[in-house]
Amino acid sequence: MEHLFSDRVQQVKASEIREILKLTQMPDIISFAGGLPAPELFPIEALKNVASVVLDEMGKEALQYSTTEGYDPLRSKIAARMIRAGVKATKDDILITSGSQQGLDFSGKIFINPGDYVLCESPSYLGAINAFKAYQSAFKEVKTDHEGMDLADLETVIQDTPNAKFIYVIPDFQNPSGRTWSLERRKGIVEIANRYNLVIIEDNPYGELRFEGETIASIKSFDTEGRVIYLGTFSKTFSPGIRIGFVLAAPTLLNKYILVKQGADLQSSTLSQRELNQYLEMYDFDAHISKIREVYKKRRDLMMETIREAFPASAKCEVPQGGLFAWVELPKHIDTKALLIKAVENKVAFVPGGSFFPNGGQENYMRLNFSNMPEEKIVEGIQRLGKIIKESL
Amino acid sequence: MEHLFSDRVQQVKASEIREILKLTQMPDIISFAGGLPAPELFPIEALKNVASVVLDEMGKEALQYSTTEGYDPLRSKIAARMIRAGVKATKDDILITSGSQQGLDFSGKIFINPGDYVLCESPSYLGAINAFKAYQSAFKEVKTDHEGMDLADLETVIQDTPNAKFIYVIPDFQNPSGRTWSLERRKGIVEIANRYNLVIIEDNPYGELRFEGETIASIKSFDTEGRVIYLGTFSKTFSPGIRIGFVLAAPTLLNKYILVKQGADLQSSTLSQRELNQYLEMYDFDAHISKIREVYKKRRDLMMETIREAFPASAKCEVPQGGLFAWVELPKHIDTKALLIKAVENKVAFVPGGSFFPNGGQENYMRLNFSNMPEEKIVEGIQRLGKIIKESL
Repeated sequence: MEHLFSDRVQQVKASEIREILKLTQMPDIISFAGGLPAPELFPIEALKNVASVVLDEMGKEALQYSTTEGYDPLRSKIAARMIRAGVKATKDDILITSGSQQGLDFSGKIFINPGDYVLCESPSYLGAINAFKAYQSAFKEVKTDHEGMDLADLETVIQDTPNAKFIYVIPDFQNPSGRTWSLERRKGIVEIANRYNLVIIEDNPYGELRFEGETIASIKSFDTEGRVIYLGTFSKTFSPGIRIGFVLAAPTLLNKYILVKQGADLQSSTLSQRELNQYLEMYDFDAHISKIREVYKKRRDLMMETIREAFPASAKCEVPQGGLFAWVELPKHIDTKALLIKAVENKVAFVPGGSFFPNGGQENYMRLNFSNMPEEKIVEGIQRLGKIIKESL
Repeated sequence: MEHLFSDRVQQVKASEIREILKLTQMPDIISFAGGLPAPELFPIEALKNVASVVLDEMGKEALQYSTTEGYDPLRSKIAARMIRAGVKATKDDILITSGSQQGLDFSGKIFINPGDYVLCESPSYLGAINAFKAYQSAFKEVKTDHEGMDLADLETVIQDTPNAKFIYVIPDFQNPSGRTWSLERRKGIVEIANRYNLVIIEDNPYGELRFEGETIASIKSFDTEGRVIYLGTFSKTFSPGIRIGFVLAAPTLLNKYILVKQGADLQSSTLSQRELNQYLEMYDFDAHISKIREVYKKRRDLMMETIREAFPASAKCEVPQGGLFAWVELPKHIDTKALLIKAVENKVAFVPGGSFFPNGGQENYMRLNFSNMPEEKIVEGIQRLGKIIKESL
């Protein structure tokens, strides 16, 4: 039946994330591979209370079909949080999605014709790359440094790419690089998008997990022409298992997302939306996020410290100011895919960096997650990795 | 920014279902429009107990990311139910989806290139038509009678359509027609699909809601070559709000669905999957379904009886043996879209049949849902509709 498959699905290959999630399920492995939050911080008791209240007070509504856009009180609360973060928003700018991954998929569906280009940071998020590839996109990687995209390079790339559709960026504690964009670059990319009439997709799953320094205004907050689409999620601050994210965009653009969601899965879970809304009413979400930040900061500090001690001097790693990931550059001749095989033999896992470069050719990076492992395992795992890297030099 | 939109999304228009769901939210309307289950039958107390157990006993796992395929114990239970229904299945043949609507969307994504044909019953499910259209499919409607598709017409259509990809059917209590396929037609369509090397998508959201007569084996149970893809859901028997459905297919085909789901939303809710699994362990699901059947049978009987009394003799309506919908054919010159406007003025709603014909041109049908309204409203609503129809003759 091969001949019946669509052209687009021929391009969809098993991603390493998936194989890696399988690895992380082995009980005795120290995994820096997935992007998993720390499960010991999940608000389990709160969710139990919230589930009772929702089922007692509005069980019939919570288990029924609802509108595609999402539960209005939750949409309003998200809008209020975005206003606090400097983005003008009302509930009508918000569509509830099943995680922000769904926002990425919809972005591909809405903008990409086969052969169209996505402009992205180099490196960029593997899950986004795969979502866009399913719509037969091509990619141009824009040079990126510790302040974000190199905007001069971005302009050159745009001038060179007539069928560019959107610029996809993760400006806060980027996945995989851990880097954060400067304020100037954020303002600058909006000016460029305005000038060349392009859309920006600002993916911000980690922004609330800042360990130090001042919060930097989102790219969306500088959007005067309604051309920035902002993707948010509760996966890293509440629970990834309930699959609640959102798209924030100007109504004309958002309307496309709503229509596409209707065909894709009608709506996100009514029950999960009402439970999350009830949680936000009954509990102090900001205090909960502070607790997460505190724990992850310790883990980040410990990972950085152990990397400095255990990795060879030729391994480079910037200190991420937040988020979930550290990104290590090794000498050019080291292939981290081969390194992973040795690592797994030694019961430690990470993600080889190659698949974060959509056009390939850069195999000497590794992504290390520091949110999911307890402190003693971070030390032990990084020491093991250090030994393996030194042996490969 | 219009020029940035993909060709496919230009085809996606607001569906009537969505506008109609808005209508049904008006408090004083008698709505036969949506496909909503009866909320008074939702297992609210059971779900409360189940949520407690899941969060107490496995809260960390239930709120964490999990595999794309779904929760293994739930997949196994679904496979066991399918075996009982005559389909050979193991958990490895099952992918958990966010409602069966997601299985429809993925089917479009996996099979349809722009301009490819979907062969479907005439009429067919509006939500499926819209999901496939988003991948730029065209449609050929196959003649359909009270035993299912006319298989001779199906063969003629296939011979006439070189770029047909799959045959989409709803053999049990079809949406919108309420019709059920005979055993012979079920066997026959598999033979035809084998002969012409096509895929069949068997969508079965209502099969367990049979009010009388014997269950007829599914099309999938006659599949010897792994070319039938079966879509199931818990929306009509448990709760639509939790968004749990499934795709059952041979591993080579299912693997495409898994890959596509990974890019689309990573996975369905871990929490909902574990709660549903726990419910199936702690409660008698078949007894629950029996209760639903009993209530819906009464409502169907009452709707049929009232239609016979209140509608003009020229209105034709077959008695559906199960499911959620009755389908009324009115004289050719009546446009049920115009009728709907009058109906809503009289605080009663239904779905005009036109949009269930993907190639249009048939405006004299109406779809009536009998599962969602209590008995007294069914009588009152049908009487009002009868009056409006008589005035339009």
